This record gives sequence, C-alpha cells and structure tokens, in this order.
Amino acid sequence: MIRSTLYCLAVQSGKLSLAKYAGGALIPTLSIDRDDRATITVQLVSALRDLILSGQLRAGERLPASRTLAQDQGVSRTTAINAYEQLTAEGLLRSQVGSGTFVSDSIPTHQEPAEIENSGAMPRLAHLSAEASDQYFPRLSHPETPRAFVTGMPAFDVFPMPLWSRLASRYWRSPRSLVMSYPDACGLLELRQAVCQHLRANRGVNCTPEEVFIFSGAQNAFNRIGSMLLDPGDPVWFENPGAIGARNSLISCGAQLIPVPVDEQGMDVKAGLVAAPNFRLAFVTPAHQHPLGTTMTTERRFELLRAAENAGAWVVEDDFVGEFHYGTHTPPPLKSIDASGRVIYVGTFSKALFPALRLGYVIAPPKLVPIFQRIAQATMQGTPASLQSIVADFINEGHFAAHIRRMRDIYAERRDTLMLEASRSLNGLLKVQPTDTGFHTVGDLTHPNLTDVAISQAAHSAGIVTAPVSRFTIQPVPRQAITLGFSAVTPAQIQKGVQALASVIRDAMASA
Amino acid sequence: MIRSTLYCLAVQSGKLSLAKYAGGALIPTLSIDRDDRATITVQLVSALRDLILSGQLRAGERLPASRTLAQDQGVSRTTAINAYEQLTAEGLLRSQVGSGTFVSDSIPTHQEPAEIENSGAMPRLAHLSAEASDQYFPRLSHPETPRAFVTGMPAFDVFPMPLWSRLASRYWRSPRSLVMSYPDACGLLELRQAVCQHLRANRGVNCTPEEVFIFSGAQNAFNRIGSMLLDPGDPVWFENPGAIGARNSLISCGAQLIPVPVDEQGMDVKAGLVAAPNFRLAFVTPAHQHPLGTTMTTERRFELLRAAENAGAWVVEDDFVGEFHYGTHTPPPLKSIDASGRVIYVGTFSKALFPALRLGYVIAPPKLVPIFQRIAQATMQGTPASLQSIVADFINEGHFAAHIRRMRDIYAERRDTLMLEASRSLNGLLKVQPTDTGFHTVGDLTHPNLTDVAISQAAHSAGIVTAPVSRFTIQPVPRQAITLGFSAVTPAQIQKGVQALASVIRDAMASA
Repeated sequence: MIRSTLYCLAVQSGKLSLAKYAGGALIPTLSIDRDDRATITVQLVSALRDLILSGQLRAGERLPASRTLAQDQGVSRTTAINAYEQLTAEGLLRSQVGSGTFVSDSIPTHQEPAEIENSGAMPRLAHLSAEASDQYFPRLSHPETPRAFVTGMPAFDVFPMPLWSRLASRYWRSPRSLVMSYPDACGLLELRQAVCQHLRANRGVNCTPEEVFIFSGAQNAFNRIGSMLLDPGDPVWFENPGAIGARNSLISCGAQLIPVPVDEQGMDVKAGLVAAPNFRLAFVTPAHQHPLGTTMTTERRFELLRAAENAGAWVVEDDFVGEFHYGTHTPPPLKSIDASGRVIYVGTFSKALFPALRLGYVIAPPKLVPIFQRIAQATMQGTPASLQSIVADFINEGHFAAHIRRMRDIYAERRDTLMLEASRSLNGLLKVQPTDTGFHTVGDLTHPNLTDVAISQAAHSAGIVTAPVSRFTIQPVPRQAITLGFSAVTPAQIQKGVQALASVIRDAMASA
Repeated sequence: MIRSTLYCLAVQSGKLSLAKYAGGALIPTLSIDRDDRATITVQLVSALRDLILSGQLRAGERLPASRTLAQDQGVSRTTAINAYEQLTAEGLLRSQVGSGTFVSDSIPTHQEPAEIENSGAMPRLAHLSAEASDQYFPRLSHPETPRAFVTGMPAFDVFPMPLWSRLASRYWRSPRSLVMSYPDACGLLELRQAVCQHLRANRGVNCTPEEVFIFSGAQNAFNRIGSMLLDPGDPVWFENPGAIGARNSLISCGAQLIPVPVDEQGMDVKAGLVAAPNFRLAFVTPAHQHPLGTTMTTERRFELLRAAENAGAWVVEDDFVGEFHYGTHTPPPLKSIDASGRVIYVGTFSKALFPALRLGYVIAPPKLVPIFQRIAQATMQGTPASLQSIVADFINEGHFAAHIRRMRDIYAERRDTLMLEASRSLNGLLKVQPTDTGFHTVGDLTHPNLTDVAISQAAHSAGIVTAPVSRFTIQPVPRQAITLGFSAVTPAQIQKGVQALASVIRDAMASA
C-alpha cells in the first residue's frame, strides 16, 4: 500500500531528488508495496488521488511528466501513464496537449481529513436514535471460552459438531439455484414447517408455517416488533429486573419502559396495572424469567392475558430457553393459552443449538401475519438460506429432538451439581435459588453489607463470570443477588467455580 | 396431530359412544397421529387444552375418569393420567380427591379462535409502520432458476462451488468456541479487515476495519441507516427512477422522498437543489444507476458532495455492483473523494458472491463510527459467524480477487452478446442502451404507442423476465423502457431471449 506522507520524504530523501522539477509538482515518494494484493497501478492511483483530494496537490497544479513520475516512484512508464489516464477519466486530472497533465480546476478545496475528524460538530442523528443511544443498557460480554458461571450460553463441549458438519457439507451439494438465490423474506418454508413441528412437540404451541417468521436472531425480531407496534412514548410493561437486549430494542423505538416488579410467581400484573393501566405492550420471559430464573405461574399468565385484553395491548413472550425444563410439568407458553390473538411468541436457536447461527423466529398472531408479511417483503431479504436449510434438516431428521432431550439431562445434571456444591460450600454466604428451567439461576448475598456489584467485580478479578442482578434493573430492587449460569461449563468447572466464589465472598465478608 | 372438531364426532360416531357419560363431560374423538413426531401425551394434552381454552369444555365442568378417557381415545391409561397431570400442573384442571378432575374455575371464557380471526377490528400498529406499509413499492420477485433477462443476480453456473464447499467444511472443523459463540455485533474482525483490503484494491476506497460494519445484507444496512439518521418527514433525495428495496427502507423511517431526475450523467443535482435544497440525505447508485445502468460522472459526484456539504446532508452510496466494470477506467466511488466525511458507503456480497449469503457492509464516515458501534452493541447481535468467516477466508486466500476478475470477463462477454444480438434483431424495436458496468441495461421502446408495462407483461407470458422502468419511478418519467439483465444467463440463453423478445415487441407493434 502507498502512504503519501511528508515523513517519507524526509527519511528517504537520500534516494529521492528534492530539486524543483521543471516538469511539474514535487511528489513525495509513495512507498509501493509489491506484496500487496492491490496492483501497483491501483496503489499509485489511490496515493495520487489522496494527494489531490487532501489539497497537497492543488487545483490547477502541473504534475510531473509520466516518464519522470515513473522514474521517481520506481514504476514502469506504462503504470504511470495508466495512473494518469485513470485519474483523468475520474475527472481529477486534465491533460493539455503539449503542456502536460494538471490537477483539475474543478476540484473543490477540502478540509484536511484530520480537521474533519477533530472538529467538534456532531453530525445530526435522528432524534429517536440520538435519544435512545443515551439510554442503552450495556450488554454483558461473553467470554471467549466458557467459564463458570457464564449465562446464556449452551454447552459447546457436547454439541454434535461432526453430525452438523455432515449436514452442512451435504447442503452445499444441493442444486445451485436453491443454494445461491435470494431466500424468502419471511423465512425458508422448510424451516417454518420444522419450527411448527418443534413447537407443537416441545412447547404445546399450535401454529401454521404462515405464522412463523424467521429472523436473524431474536434481537432482530424485537427490533422489528418494536418498530411495527410502538409509537414513541408508548408505555411498555417490562420486567424489573429484566433482559437487556430486548430492552434496548424497545428503547430504540421510543418506548416508555414501565418497570414492573417480578416475584416468585413472575411479573406482578397488579403492580403493572397500578403503574400503567393503559400499557401498549408487555414484554415477558415466562418460562424462565431473565435474569431471576423463576417461572411465571399459570394464574399469572391468565392474569396478564386478561390485562392485555382489557388494555388492547400486545404481549411479547420471549421463550428463549423454553426447551429446557427439568421438572415434570411446566406451565404452557402464553402463546398456547392466548385465545384472543395478542401474544407474539419469540423463539431462538441460540440456546437450543448455538448463538453463532443467528437464527430466531416469531410466531405472529393471525391478525399480524399480513403485516409481518408486508414488512418482510418490502424491507427484508431474509436470513442466510444455508443455515435455515441445515437447521430444518437437523429438525426434520430427528436430531433436534434427540439433542434437546440429551441436553436437558446434561443441564439438569449441571444444575444439580451447582445446587449440591452450593449447599456444601456457600451456606451462610450465598442463598442459591432453586430453578427447574433454563441455563442459570441467581444467588442472594446473605451478608447485609455486601453489594452484588462489589461481589461481581471481586469474582471477576478471581476469574469468575457473574453479573449483579442490579445491572438488569430499571428501578432498584431490594435484593443483592448475582447470576449463576450452569449450562456452559462442566460439573468439574462448576465445582471449582463454587469454591472460588466461596472464598471471594468470604474475603469480602471479612473486610465488610 | 389431534384435531378436536365436532366434525370428527359426526364422521366417527359409528365407533364413538355418544351416550352421556356418568363419569364426566363428553369429549369428541381426538384423532391421534401415531406417526407424528409429537408424543401421544403431547398430542392429547394439546387437544384437551384447546377444548378448555376454546370453551368447548367449560370452567367447572367435570372430565371423564382417566380410565374412560384412555378407553375412548385409544390411549394407555398412563398417557391419560399424564395428560391430566400436565394440565393440572398448568392450572387448567383441578383434581378433587374422591370426586374427579374438573376444568379450573379460573379459566376465562374466551372467544372462539374463528371469531377472532374473522372480527373486523385491525390491531393498532405504530403510526409510522401503518403509514409506511401503504406506501411500499412491490419488489421484483426472482425466478427460481435464472432466465433471460433477470436482473440483480450473479452467474450461478460459473461460481466455484467446490472451492466454496471446501472452505465451508474446513470452517466447521475450527475450535468450537470460535464457531459457536456470539459473533461481534459490528462484524467479524477478519471480515472487516478483508473488506478494507478488497475495497482498496478494487474500488480505490481507503478505510480502516473499525469503519466497516457487517450487516445481514445491504437492505438491513439501509434500514439501520434510515432509522439512525432520519426523522419522520425529513426530505431525502432519491433517484427517479430508483432502487425499490432501499426506497422501502427509507419509507419505513418516515422519509419524505424527493424524486430527483436521472440523466446520462447520473442524478441531476441541480434539479434536486430546486426541489429540496434542504435535503437531509441523498441516496444514490453512482457506479451503475439502478435501474438505468448509467454511471455518474465525476463532475456530478463532486457536485453532489458539494450540495450535501452545503445542506449538512448525508450521502448514501449504494455500490451494489461496483466490482463489475468492463471499460478501461471508471470514476472513483463517492466514498474515495469524500473529503468532508458525509458519505456512507454500502456494499454487498450478493452480486460479487451470491445473494443467499445475506452479507452486506457499511463503511461509515469517521464521525458515525461511534454511533454505529453503540447501536450495534446495544441492539444487534451480528450476522452468522460461519458465513462471515468463510467469506473472509475466500478473500484472504486470493479467491475473491480471482473470482471478480474472471466474472468481469464473463459478464463483459454476456453484455457483448446482448448488444450484438440486439443490433441484429432488435433494430427498430428496442433501443438497447450501451453500458460499461453492472448486471443489466435498459432498452427503450421505439414505437410511440407501446408502453413498458404492456411489453413487460407480454414478455412475461412468453417466459421472458423483464421489468418496466416505470415500476421504479416515484414520478412518471418520459420514456418507455424495460430492464435487460445479462449477468445470470449464458450467451446462448441471451441469444434465444433476444429472439423471443423481438417477436413479443413485433407482435405488440402489429396490434398497436
């Protein structure tokens, strides 16, 4: 690559003539990288263009003859001529027969790029976007390799990768027009059918393929749902504490978030009704409350649906780990008891398969199906056909059901290990809440002077991944608790993690 | 799958006792599908739940004993007991020792699903979304297999699929934490670096990896750019005729589209200044105007940048086929001559590789980099890691540059075939415009009584894919022209297509 700095001139002045050219402007040595993938002509054109646009070569200035340029820059004469021709075709140079090549007179004098970058004026953003970006909640970052007690990550170590690779290899041997074309904006039909089958068998949700819309991850679904249904200022019930990603999506749409408390039965619907009876949408994680790990009772589910019906509100059900329950029975998803067609169900393959897929889906209530279709067809181009197709095959050939069954056993075992180790080593330090669902639970600090923020930070320093529940709150909650993921790490790692966490808390108590 | 309709009752009444049960409510025969992937218990639970929620089994009603249910439905007693237990756990049934199982009293009486679907009341949407969806322009649909003269599709027949498959297979053997984790929300670093390298070598654009943001296709980039920069009502310069997808994205954000005429030099900047001097954003396709196929002159490019600078406006440069130019020299992308940092460059791999990938990218001006970062990190989770990584390898190992060089030759040959065949067979029928760039050109109808809409329809009936230019207009333009893609089909197909098109136009002229 060519870098056109005056520094080059100074350093390389030994081999570069600095005498005033009779033949045209002085051009610094442009260091050409012969190992670069860009051709020498491209590099030369790009460097000369930079000199012109940055004003180092001024409008009307004469350039050296191509022969001189070639000599000075150590390139062939053809390269130099080609570069001048290209820049002339671009309108940056003009050539005048008999008198040489000049920088065009029409080149506007521009600011130095450095000046632009450093000037204080902020470009104007959309109001909504500018306001939202101040309100965003920082998302948890995921460690590169799974560590205790990371949350929201499936067990990478036991995923059937050889099987997956076989399906992927087979896919790329399919007919080219299938493999290469634009996918359906609403989602691949095979995957939409497979999702229906999966939800019926695993979640008791009955839906048709037309009601299924495939998104590049659940987060994109939240973005779309928000902009489809919410006007700026619309009150939205949001669990407090609650999920961070979905919250940011709703904030982006200008939603007025109404924090609704969560107790051991799930979202406190009565409190929501007191705070904002005319809510426009409620966002809930009924199967496994994020981040508390509790399951919403059936009674509360009906209460929420009734409240939504009375208010004319939508309900977004984020069933992100719905497949993973370890007890005998679980309450039905809101979607399966939604008799008035106001529940928008959002599922994901990030937990049941793996996050790098970026595949999520929406089951739209019948009334919203044409709207989703219209918006998808007008403004979306679908998610990658390959991954949709491979996941559809994975489901249709029975691997997905087998995988979920197997993972339930593995996660239940990991959860049991966490609870057992906690009962042995965290007594009097951290009250780890039992859970029958999902990838994580929370532990409440028992010492009155400890904060979840301080303990999380101390844990982090000790190499343990955990997050304070307070980080998920819109309004402070009267508990000091930290998240404890058990899905992504082995029982041995969990055991060690509990030991390490116990000393972190013990140390903190000693100095509290 | 079980369907609980009374129709079943009538049809199957021969084998079903309709006598009033002493033991509980009448339950219609639930047709259980033993080949279904859902277990029989799941099917039974789901069907009973439907009966309860639809009101066919009423609150407080007594159900048959599990033994009776098992007998009537042809399932094992254990299955019947499990189903009752599940529904009790869900809160839909209650069991009373000694007197049996009842539908819960707390079940609200719901409408029939049929009533909901048929009731006229439209659910409320966000105002912007409701307004936008009426204004959307229908997008062109792509034929399943390439046919003359489809536009916007690369040549599937010559793509190096065996090589691609090898890279894909190799990818899935990488370490699991790389392959399975959440990707960076802004894009995979390797791909961002590779995009920089590609743009420098092929487009003369200098950028840093931090300025590159990977999107799930260019359309998603347009959606994001629109919501980031536009307030509802903001005037946006849009080429007339112009691209449909980007237009829909901007409409979604409430943009007020200002149609700006396009001539053989590209967007008529002076006309734009008359129509809306205080435009907030200009959307352009300088390398290959969509749909006219012309290239914006360098003079016009500077004129546009100056106008944007004066108005404090942004410029979105959609460089969707920037890699494909067949002449000796092409004007530089706006991005490469943008000295004041207001050009947002959008590229895509849909044309240079293939559309099913859903990979596009934005090169953000320095001032917008932190905004893109903040929005991506808060509300995006990135595009699939696998495809990003495979494309990065494809670029880094030199295959991409070789592929583009090869495709340029192939597309130039196909374009030459089109022009040659047109000069032979379309003389006096259709004036096919020469083009040095992109995947298509347009042909102007020469007969004064023919419309592009009528000819496109007639062509469609004859198996030819073409679109009337009028379909791309916001305001009518004084020409009757149709699109002619040459990229996706072989010279032989182009030759046949020209013959077929000639007879379509000749027939239309005969009856005009």
